[in-house]
Amino acid sequence: MNPSDVTNKMMHDDAFSQWLGIQILSSSMGSAAVQMTLRKEMTNGFGIAHGGITYSLADSALAFASNSYGDVAVSVETQISHLHPVSVNDVLTAKAVEVSRSAKLAVYNVEIFNDIGKMVAHFKGTVYIKKERHF
Amino acid sequence: MNPSDVTNKMMHDDAFSQWLGIQILSSSMGSAAVQMTLRKEMTNGFGIAHGGITYSLADSALAFASNSYGDVAVSVETQISHLHPVSVNDVLTAKAVEVSRSAKLAVYNVEIFNDIGKMVAHFKGTVYIKKERHF
Amino acid sequence: MNPSDVTNKMMHDDAFSQWLGIQILSSSMGSAAVQMTLRKEMTNGFGIAHGGITYSLADSALAFASNSYGDVAVSVETQISHLHPVSVNDVLTAKAVEVSRSAKLAVYNVEIFNDIGKMVAHFKGTVYIKKERHF
Amino acid sequence: MNPSDVTNKMMHDDAFSQWLGIQILSSSMGSAAVQMTLRKEMTNGFGIAHGGITYSLADSALAFASNSYGDVAVSVETQISHLHPVSVNDVLTAKAVEVSRSAKLAVYNVEIFNDIGKMVAHFKGTVYIKKERHF
Repeated sequence: MNPSDVTNKMMHDDAFSQWLGIQILSSSMGSAAVQMTLRKEMTNGFGIAHGGITYSLADSALAFASNSYGDVAVSVETQISHLHPVSVNDVLTAKAVEVSRSAKLAVYNVEIFNDIGKMVAHFKGTVYIKKERHF
Repeated sequence: MNPSDVTNKMMHDDAFSQWLGIQILSSSMGSAAVQMTLRKEMTNGFGIAHGGITYSLADSALAFASNSYGDVAVSVETQISHLHPVSVNDVLTAKAVEVSRSAKLAVYNVEIFNDIGKMVAHFKGTVYIKKERHF
Repeated sequence: MNPSDVTNKMMHDDAFSQWLGIQILSSSMGSAAVQMTLRKEMTNGFGIAHGGITYSLADSALAFASNSYGDVAVSVETQISHLHPVSVNDVLTAKAVEVSRSAKLAVYNVEIFNDIGKMVAHFKGTVYIKKERHF
Repeated sequence: MNPSDVTNKMMHDDAFSQWLGIQILSSSMGSAAVQMTLRKEMTNGFGIAHGGITYSLADSALAFASNSYGDVAVSVETQISHLHPVSVNDVLTAKAVEVSRSAKLAVYNVEIFNDIGKMVAHFKGTVYIKKERHF
């Protein structure tokens, strides 16, 4: 089993990440990069991306990065700073990197950029690592 | 203008909250209660609600509560603890209450419950209040 | 063993909480109330309480509330919003209440008030519950 | 005026950072590195650093980095993950780096390492930038 196997299986079963149109750019032990394009139906009352969309993209990146070792990891606490508005047709790229990992808990940072390289959101998440395996 | 006017206008223009199927239960100065039902397309690779769904519901509740005075308020930083899994057909109710509000910044707590009254997520958000008005 | 026994033992061994001058007002299963007075040596470059002081008071309240059942609980992730400046001689009261508790993880809110009842800080903390007991 | 002037002035007036024994290692536009040694009076009931100590060190680093441009910046919301215990005599180094900065709000990450290069805490902070200047 390699990191991509877990990521592909998780993505295959993840109906909401599919609805978001998430594409996996890369996946390795403790990291993941994903991409999506903002659609009209994902906007809020201000005509820009609903905060839940960038959060969801980051949360999927967190799930892929934290589960990449094969142990089931679940989100305990996550935090997002919305830094810059996202418009319809913007292509968003999220990169999750590992800050720390012990036997039970791990912390990840996820940065989201738009297609001109501007950081639009910064996310931090803590996961709890279960005794269960993916395969 | 009353709090419901702002909330109704925001909800009317909010494509993603409509996709989520959010219903407004109540709306007043500094608070809001909203409801939605979890659909299959909102689940993740574990067959339960994607973290982004409960986050999105809480974030909409935050937007309604923090904009209820008529001043435009935008999210600066939000945090969510996922406490209990949410299954397809679960009815989720989110209640946003004001912790603190000054001229420029305000803080809200949002609690999300399922239909048997179990808290499934706890969210905290900080907004920045702009000089702009909704009407 | 009752909640106060754990709290008293923890306070007795806690050199920094003693330096802060923390007094325990009450302690029960899942909650705790503590008090301290701001001294000059606790201020920052703006002449008001250093953010680390209100954080430390809240963190001690979290420790007392989350360890009150007798199981050793350690902080995983904590967050604080500084809402109002604190001046020398202000008496601060912190109240920790339980939001959620499962076998492994628990979440607490801590509100800190000054002596005229103004909320000066709002803290949220997640702890990990170990298999170890205090007694 | 250069970044070090603001940092030196803030440190000079900051009674609590002095009590902590904080030394400024470096200071530039948007970043700062500081150091301190853990003393016995800074420990909690488990005989390791009280969470408030590492938080305070990070919060001072945040203050120095975010005020380095000369505009007064105040903490709005901060978050810390405690990753590894800190023992008496451990030398802690905190490095604050800028994630994002707009006219009104800025976000910083602060990493804290012990003397063998192990990350003991990861802190994220958001500040509000006032119209006021330091000089």
